[in-house]
Amino acid sequence: MTDRTRPYNFAPGPAAIPDEVLREAAAEMLDWHGCGVGVMEMSHRGKEFMQIAAEAEADLRELLAVPAGFRILFLQGGGLGENAIVPMNLSRGGQVDFVQTGSWSKKSIAEARRYADVAVVATNSGSADSAIPDPSTWALRKGASYLHICSNETIDGVEFHALPDLAALGTDAPLVIDCSSHILSRPIDWSRVGLAFAGAQKNVGPAGLTMVIVRDDLLGHALPITPSAFDYRIVADNGSMFNTPPTWAIYVAGLTFKWIKANGGVAAMDARAAEKSALLYEALDATGFYVNRVAAASRSRMNVPFWLRDESLNDAFLAGAKERGLLALKGHKSVGGMRASIYNAMPVAGVRALVAWLQEFEKTHG
Amino acid sequence: MTDRTRPYNFAPGPAAIPDEVLREAAAEMLDWHGCGVGVMEMSHRGKEFMQIAAEAEADLRELLAVPAGFRILFLQGGGLGENAIVPMNLSRGGQVDFVQTGSWSKKSIAEARRYADVAVVATNSGSADSAIPDPSTWALRKGASYLHICSNETIDGVEFHALPDLAALGTDAPLVIDCSSHILSRPIDWSRVGLAFAGAQKNVGPAGLTMVIVRDDLLGHALPITPSAFDYRIVADNGSMFNTPPTWAIYVAGLTFKWIKANGGVAAMDARAAEKSALLYEALDATGFYVNRVAAASRSRMNVPFWLRDESLNDAFLAGAKERGLLALKGHKSVGGMRASIYNAMPVAGVRALVAWLQEFEKTHG
Repeated sequence: MTDRTRPYNFAPGPAAIPDEVLREAAAEMLDWHGCGVGVMEMSHRGKEFMQIAAEAEADLRELLAVPAGFRILFLQGGGLGENAIVPMNLSRGGQVDFVQTGSWSKKSIAEARRYADVAVVATNSGSADSAIPDPSTWALRKGASYLHICSNETIDGVEFHALPDLAALGTDAPLVIDCSSHILSRPIDWSRVGLAFAGAQKNVGPAGLTMVIVRDDLLGHALPITPSAFDYRIVADNGSMFNTPPTWAIYVAGLTFKWIKANGGVAAMDARAAEKSALLYEALDATGFYVNRVAAASRSRMNVPFWLRDESLNDAFLAGAKERGLLALKGHKSVGGMRASIYNAMPVAGVRALVAWLQEFEKTHG
Repeated sequence: MTDRTRPYNFAPGPAAIPDEVLREAAAEMLDWHGCGVGVMEMSHRGKEFMQIAAEAEADLRELLAVPAGFRILFLQGGGLGENAIVPMNLSRGGQVDFVQTGSWSKKSIAEARRYADVAVVATNSGSADSAIPDPSTWALRKGASYLHICSNETIDGVEFHALPDLAALGTDAPLVIDCSSHILSRPIDWSRVGLAFAGAQKNVGPAGLTMVIVRDDLLGHALPITPSAFDYRIVADNGSMFNTPPTWAIYVAGLTFKWIKANGGVAAMDARAAEKSALLYEALDATGFYVNRVAAASRSRMNVPFWLRDESLNDAFLAGAKERGLLALKGHKSVGGMRASIYNAMPVAGVRALVAWLQEFEKTHG
């Protein structure tokens, strides 16, 4: 990429945003489409912002092929906030089942315990390879209001490559997926999903926006203690404008949706994710110098944690990476090591540059 | 203002942001201070963003002279969200008192009823002039966990020009102020305040950021149903980084804080607010063609609602205003008429231009 002037940013979130999106946002900062004011300064109820929000919603619906019967909501609060807001809206104060596959599902379990009778029906905790437990072994409860999974664990690098078919497992409980860190990197099978949510700051845009896609029949069951700003029924009835939405974040998300459409849609993002992750895992697997601990079938295509066998070399690895324009490769503090987050905005060339550095570093330090 | 190319934006929020702030945000969009990535793309835990957030917090503390013993928190959820989050954190499930002075205090009362035994201890509802009720008449309850006021009613144009002294009124309940629409337009007497909160999208920056300034002793009393992302104790203990904060909004807020400092600080904003609002109210009072219904002593310096005596002229007034670069003057749907929001970012010249239009329109239609 001889024309690239910016470094490659492997941050897990907030994360890289396509150059084209940032350039457009900068160009329109003081004057959106000739209206004389910038997007941050617009009333959320004016026709300009209503158009921005409507296009963002329509583009997201098109990209993910969200069927009629599902509502798209734009909220605040992030993934952690949503881990409380989902049980407020969907648990009915009853039973909620969880599959625990890493740090984020663990957090969601802790939040839900405030509102519901929570059971962990399967876990990979304690397993050496972090594989996703076989759905046929999940101890699903018949009376559960829903089953929650984190379909891509950002910290642990564990991904569901297919969503479980709960009907086939003998329950009509809706499936809730936290798809924050792989939304728009692959299609979603909506026949298996009741609610999907995602914080925008990983694969979409700026922090401060949470996207919720929810089946109509799951609206209207919020617990009485649910703040109205977070009551899905109220938010849906008001087109996500019951309170002031995070307008700038919706705008940047919308620009990103248009960028994905212009670059082949989710099918192209899916193919690129396969290509990029294969390149990186092959490089890691080709040597004992680096280690990835996740079972091959459960490896994330978005977040690739890895360790240097000799961790005393960590600082040298990171310093050399930075010199080569490869940023934010340090692993999450809870697991250590390294992590390369390779979301939609990461070009294949960025992964090739990282692979070249992995090989160069091993040659000089191996 | 011969060098001005942008129209004057009188929107109530999201609202005008100073040109200098927008220009800086645009210029740094792809590369903040030479680090190679933009602010939206940075990890909130990296040293660059930690610096941005720390400076924003320190500048806000300096501008408002926030004393030791108060914490500054950056949250999500907006004013409406905070109307639930405050009683979750401060009510202890007991009594909470409210003074109702307009639409926003009414909303806060409705939210608080989910969590506490709420009493409206005074109201201007039904009064012809919307005056703030004399504090000596408030029916304060001895056992209340706190008293909540909206210190500037954005929709109704009613402002507390002095905060009530609850100690002098015989209660040690802390005062909670929703100062969303006039924060940083005047000093705050912290000796009278337990907690102040403000959505950023009126007088500070983009939607999606809520600033909470809270006395230390009020932390740590959250109800068990409080989401951890909104538990003040947890947020404070983690420097507003327990979950991913709205990083872009904090950054733009920080740029605005620096702009205020460069333009004379809160003292200068205070003087400008006095000057601008006097200009506008004098023009409105000089004629029977326009009407403002708020008692003189309670008139807001930030949000000036007014009506044309002949409301059939509304569309002509708004169309002519737009032609002259005076935007977003339509009143809130719940009250009708007009509203000029003249926050810190509105130059005196903008108010002069509006006054000129008020006079011109009266001449041609009066």
